Amino acid sequence: MKIIAATPASQAHTPPTVPPREEIFALADWVRLAERTSLGKMLDIGARPEILSFALGLPAPELFPAQDYATAVTQVLHRDALALQLGPPYRPLKQLIVKLMEQRGVECREGQVFLTSGAQQGLSLLARLLLNQRGQVIIEETAYTGLHMAIQPFQPKVLTVSSDAETGMDVEELERLLAGGARPAFIFAMSDGHNPLGVSLAQAKRERLVELARSFRVPIIEDDVYGLISYQDNMPAALRALDERWVFYVGSFSKIIGPALRTGWMIVPAELIPKLAIIKDLSDIDTCTLSQRAIAAYLDMGHLPAQLAAIRSEYKERRDLMIGALKKHFPEGTKWSVPAGGVFLWVTLPAGVDTIDLLKIAVEREQVAFIPGAAFGVAGDSVAKSSLRLNFTYCSRELIEEGIMRLSRALKELEVN
Amino acid sequence: MKIIAATPASQAHTPPTVPPREEIFALADWVRLAERTSLGKMLDIGARPEILSFALGLPAPELFPAQDYATAVTQVLHRDALALQLGPPYRPLKQLIVKLMEQRGVECREGQVFLTSGAQQGLSLLARLLLNQRGQVIIEETAYTGLHMAIQPFQPKVLTVSSDAETGMDVEELERLLAGGARPAFIFAMSDGHNPLGVSLAQAKRERLVELARSFRVPIIEDDVYGLISYQDNMPAALRALDERWVFYVGSFSKIIGPALRTGWMIVPAELIPKLAIIKDLSDIDTCTLSQRAIAAYLDMGHLPAQLAAIRSEYKERRDLMIGALKKHFPEGTKWSVPAGGVFLWVTLPAGVDTIDLLKIAVEREQVAFIPGAAFGVAGDSVAKSSLRLNFTYCSRELIEEGIMRLSRALKELEVN
Repeated sequence: MKIIAATPASQAHTPPTVPPREEIFALADWVRLAERTSLGKMLDIGARPEILSFALGLPAPELFPAQDYATAVTQVLHRDALALQLGPPYRPLKQLIVKLMEQRGVECREGQVFLTSGAQQGLSLLARLLLNQRGQVIIEETAYTGLHMAIQPFQPKVLTVSSDAETGMDVEELERLLAGGARPAFIFAMSDGHNPLGVSLAQAKRERLVELARSFRVPIIEDDVYGLISYQDNMPAALRALDERWVFYVGSFSKIIGPALRTGWMIVPAELIPKLAIIKDLSDIDTCTLSQRAIAAYLDMGHLPAQLAAIRSEYKERRDLMIGALKKHFPEGTKWSVPAGGVFLWVTLPAGVDTIDLLKIAVEREQVAFIPGAAFGVAGDSVAKSSLRLNFTYCSRELIEEGIMRLSRALKELEVN
Repeated sequence: MKIIAATPASQAHTPPTVPPREEIFALADWVRLAERTSLGKMLDIGARPEILSFALGLPAPELFPAQDYATAVTQVLHRDALALQLGPPYRPLKQLIVKLMEQRGVECREGQVFLTSGAQQGLSLLARLLLNQRGQVIIEETAYTGLHMAIQPFQPKVLTVSSDAETGMDVEELERLLAGGARPAFIFAMSDGHNPLGVSLAQAKRERLVELARSFRVPIIEDDVYGLISYQDNMPAALRALDERWVFYVGSFSKIIGPALRTGWMIVPAELIPKLAIIKDLSDIDTCTLSQRAIAAYLDMGHLPAQLAAIRSEYKERRDLMIGALKKHFPEGTKWSVPAGGVFLWVTLPAGVDTIDLLKIAVEREQVAFIPGAAFGVAGDSVAKSSLRLNFTYCSRELIEEGIMRLSRALKELEVN
């Protein structure tokens, strides 16, 4: 367990930039401290079209259901006179989400569904709901950067627990923290398709985690955006299936239909919906109302099962192809997870390799990008330092082997330097 | 000038509700205090379909360009392989906004445009950019409720200046505040189509306001969502036309295309864009990417000029029809503005009428809704107490006269009670 300061780990390895000119606007304190790092700039370079990118968790563009969605949105615009009007959160979509949640083993009611502008907004709204300025949160040492971002304005005390590559979060460490007096606003967890570790939380750990939340009266924020992207037949149920009171579930259509829709949902205790509605109102009033209606039409037409099947089958192929290429091209002693779900491989290189240095060479000389482990973790963590996160869903099969070859060349170049 | 506490005026007239059950979730402090008021509940009732509503600032649904927008979105989904993918803010849309801003007398560059999920998100992002916890802001005594909402999480000190029904914000009072040592994070202003007063800020006051911002180094947040909805030929330029450094402009497609798209923009100094990008990232990553592309396609097809002309012409008719009905049916001594732009009439009844009491009778017995003046202002302001805001754009011409007749009956019933 480590207690780290408010600054997310991804921003901790470079000193704050000196303002290039007289800073004439008086900005909020935390904003003044928030700067894009050299890593951030590297990732900007990595987003250039000529770069072969394993960096972001993007869906395969070839699998977008553009035709079906065009049909759905056109139908809504033609039939529904209020398609362009503001309105209350769209109840038919909530009902369809209740149905969809069954696939995650979750029983819930329409009155527990809260629509969001994507999962990131879900995290951001929950942070505002639960966190006071300089409050406390518990996350894993290696955790999704978007959670770091969502809590940043609150300058929180971040308490961390470690994770095992095979079984996920160390719940005994969590128990020691809580029993030792930690009183976090929430515990952040990803039980399936973990970002960035790719791990699924072991069943016994799921049960213990939820018990701890219940007995210490600390809500769990369960980020389950990859929960429906599974590569095995009997995917475990989400944490929310174990407790409807202390697990706040965050889901999204981004990975299963398209991130451009910016539409997601939360499942929370019904009594919290009015409070969340106040926070949502002040943030952006409503989630793209047309997206809400068009997604409901798309789901109503029954397109999702085939879409999910296509995604799962293709992504599994790409995962295995990437693992095959790693076996072939990466050095002895390299370790990786074989994720049962989600879109990421977590690869740990032999000790001594700094993946931030590797990224520089990979982008500049080999035109291939990934995210170094340090971006997700506590600064100075030596395992994270020699690890990298690879996305296996965005690039086509052809480009996956090519990209891994380029990365292995970059590794060799790094050794020579 | 008054200095009021953090709670928005709209929530100040009822004591905090006693929690109906043991409050078991530990929520952030400001959230615990934030409650829907009895007025809020009344407005929920007012949103029922059987109620004839002058309450919200909604567009006329008959004027939505549903067909043209369907063409635009279908074209985007068919032609653009990345239509459902996440991407950087869409540059062609920014370029079209630069062009659109010319109609508000504003010269700007693509590098100063920041896309938002509607104007409310613009206000919310700017509040996070500029406000510290318990910081200071200056607004008018009677101001848009969405601004009250956006600042609520910061529990700010709200300093207010009064407004004149013919010429807008009292800039001399503002100067006294600033010269007296006030150092707000920002000044909030609506120069055209003021919500709720309907007033346009006098030209001399515009110049003075911007001079004050410049010399005291306090940014103005200019909410201009109604700026393009004008009923006179030579609409004055936005405040942003007078200063590109100290005026942060907030605009939206909600009132001119449709609020369901949740797409708006800001024009800010280019050096602030990276900071805003950090805040936007943590809030919701991106504005509905498909909306960005589809709006750009819609604008590119050249539909907007005809759409704006149709809106202006129809809304002007409705405005005049409502004023005619007020003359005919409302009691002697009632006063109202004749707005040169925007979508609201601000009506002040003879002293002694409490428009919160009126709303109760109007909704329950006459099935007609509006927003009482007290919702926008400082609690106890006697002018606001006897005023009401009427929207004249949402209801059809037929319903406008009918609604005003119902309201006049409710007024008579209130007198009898």
